[in-house]
Amino acid sequence: MTRIPFDEMKATIRSAFVKAGMPEHKADICAQIHTESTRDGVASHGLNRVERFVEYLHTGLVDVHASPTLELNLGALEVYNGNMAPGILNAMFAINRATEIAEKNGIGLVSLKNTTHWMRGGTYGWLAAEKGYIGICWTNTESVMPAWGAKSEGIGNNPFVMAVPRKEGHIVLDMAMSQYSYGKLWGTRDKGQKLPYPGGFGHDGKLTDDPGPIAETRRILPMGYWKGSGFAVLLDIISALLAGGNTTAEITKLDKGSCGGCNQIFIAINPLNINTQEFIDHALNETIAQIKSSVPAKENGEVLFPGENSERTRNENMKLGIPVDDKVWAKVKELA
Amino acid sequence: MTRIPFDEMKATIRSAFVKAGMPEHKADICAQIHTESTRDGVASHGLNRVERFVEYLHTGLVDVHASPTLELNLGALEVYNGNMAPGILNAMFAINRATEIAEKNGIGLVSLKNTTHWMRGGTYGWLAAEKGYIGICWTNTESVMPAWGAKSEGIGNNPFVMAVPRKEGHIVLDMAMSQYSYGKLWGTRDKGQKLPYPGGFGHDGKLTDDPGPIAETRRILPMGYWKGSGFAVLLDIISALLAGGNTTAEITKLDKGSCGGCNQIFIAINPLNINTQEFIDHALNETIAQIKSSVPAKENGEVLFPGENSERTRNENMKLGIPVDDKVWAKVKELA
Repeated sequence: MTRIPFDEMKATIRSAFVKAGMPEHKADICAQIHTESTRDGVASHGLNRVERFVEYLHTGLVDVHASPTLELNLGALEVYNGNMAPGILNAMFAINRATEIAEKNGIGLVSLKNTTHWMRGGTYGWLAAEKGYIGICWTNTESVMPAWGAKSEGIGNNPFVMAVPRKEGHIVLDMAMSQYSYGKLWGTRDKGQKLPYPGGFGHDGKLTDDPGPIAETRRILPMGYWKGSGFAVLLDIISALLAGGNTTAEITKLDKGSCGGCNQIFIAINPLNINTQEFIDHALNETIAQIKSSVPAKENGEVLFPGENSERTRNENMKLGIPVDDKVWAKVKELA
Repeated sequence: MTRIPFDEMKATIRSAFVKAGMPEHKADICAQIHTESTRDGVASHGLNRVERFVEYLHTGLVDVHASPTLELNLGALEVYNGNMAPGILNAMFAINRATEIAEKNGIGLVSLKNTTHWMRGGTYGWLAAEKGYIGICWTNTESVMPAWGAKSEGIGNNPFVMAVPRKEGHIVLDMAMSQYSYGKLWGTRDKGQKLPYPGGFGHDGKLTDDPGPIAETRRILPMGYWKGSGFAVLLDIISALLAGGNTTAEITKLDKGSCGGCNQIFIAINPLNINTQEFIDHALNETIAQIKSSVPAKENGEVLFPGENSERTRNENMKLGIPVDDKVWAKVKELA
């Protein structure tokens, strides 16, 4: 494992995007986000997605010259057509616009239809929090997971994000509706290891923590069994109705690459329009204190709040360099 | 098991509430909701909560004469003080108000602080859907579950609701952040049965499907392990910041009964302000069709959409009468 400094990684990714036809200012922003995700420990949606994104630019699955256009303004809710522009740029526009709407209306909701993969969903939570806003965002996806009670794929894994700004470190949840990603299954399998908890069904139809058979049956487990399955369905159809866009069923038929033609929802609220900073600090820090004062399940264990681990990984990687898969890094350098 | 007709159950509960000092028009609405929840298969938050609610009326933990007062209006977001009034009445007011705000602003958010137990969260999703609105609601609670990595309680189970109106049957998700409720643990234990999937940690610190030890250790499992734990934390603090109210940590210290002094959030959006009815019908029915056409995991199995089972139970119980626990029913009749 090699560690690459942030600036070097960003410059390399940027160059790959420019070479694939992306205007420099857009390539700069996208490279920044891919590098930040990798720095925070989410290489699967950062460095490891560069090759596929470049391919999408070449094949036209992502339209590098497009940008979002307003379809409908209802006051505190605006609907945009993403026009298959780069998912990162569309989503950054949308969360920023949601914060602007929130300043005038208390809450702002921006929905995007016909957009493309936003990479790491947490990005837009962190962005909202950095600006001082509570952010709630989600996306639908193509069909990748069996609904509860089924053994064939029928629902998306529809990542869902909630973020709260906090001076000492934002509190950010970023979760897909599957218990594990395929990346986690493949990586664990390739190391010859078991998952920490069962992650899907094997060939015998039973729950297993062995990632190999799950990757073969494709019967990945919704988080919380029937709960994650139901949540995925609601996130999907609400995104389609708020954006006037494609459901998971339709995205699957469209077959325009990973998340091509999906919807994304961005909600922003400024807690300082409701509370004093003192109230906010007290509420957040009391909650963190209660979590931290829990008795750890393991001796010398530690209880983390959502987002804490990302922040630690970030700090470590900014000091030591960002760890990369050497093959992936070689490929990206080739594209640059 | 006895089956009681809807009208008889409602009249009995209504009488119990009036006897406990509730004005008749309020008792009528609350009895209706408790009966509907029981009819839909959620007796735990319907008939089985009548005794405790009557006790709260007597001890003053719920203020039967209070009603919500406006604290702040930001346009599309309104903050109310629930003034410890009956949770059902506060929540019904709030979801209705959210739909009114949504008509003018595209989206409406009403937050309630200092409110009391709303009983079955799904009630407010169904109400929104009946009016033609998408509803998103959640509540925080006192501490009832260990955070992920902890073995002592530190977070709420914070039920979360999403509802979408559909002519042929609304699509409604109603889930707490714990994999199972204590009611489910106790009931399964008392029948000498095992849970369908592991539901918490036993005395040896290992995951178990045996409900008895879990009820003793109180180490119930967040749905999806770390995911449900993180989601619970975010639902809690966002509810507190949107309502200017108590966090789970504070509700626990207050000790004003189950959910006494909690916050609830109600979001409403009218999908017909964004789409035609034809678009909505197509999106919903295509999604349901995709789920229904999945290969069932079990032979002759069936894949249900969220809310479908409630609707079936409802139809059956309206025909045959609502099944009750005989001891619980005798107690409620005593109170009436």
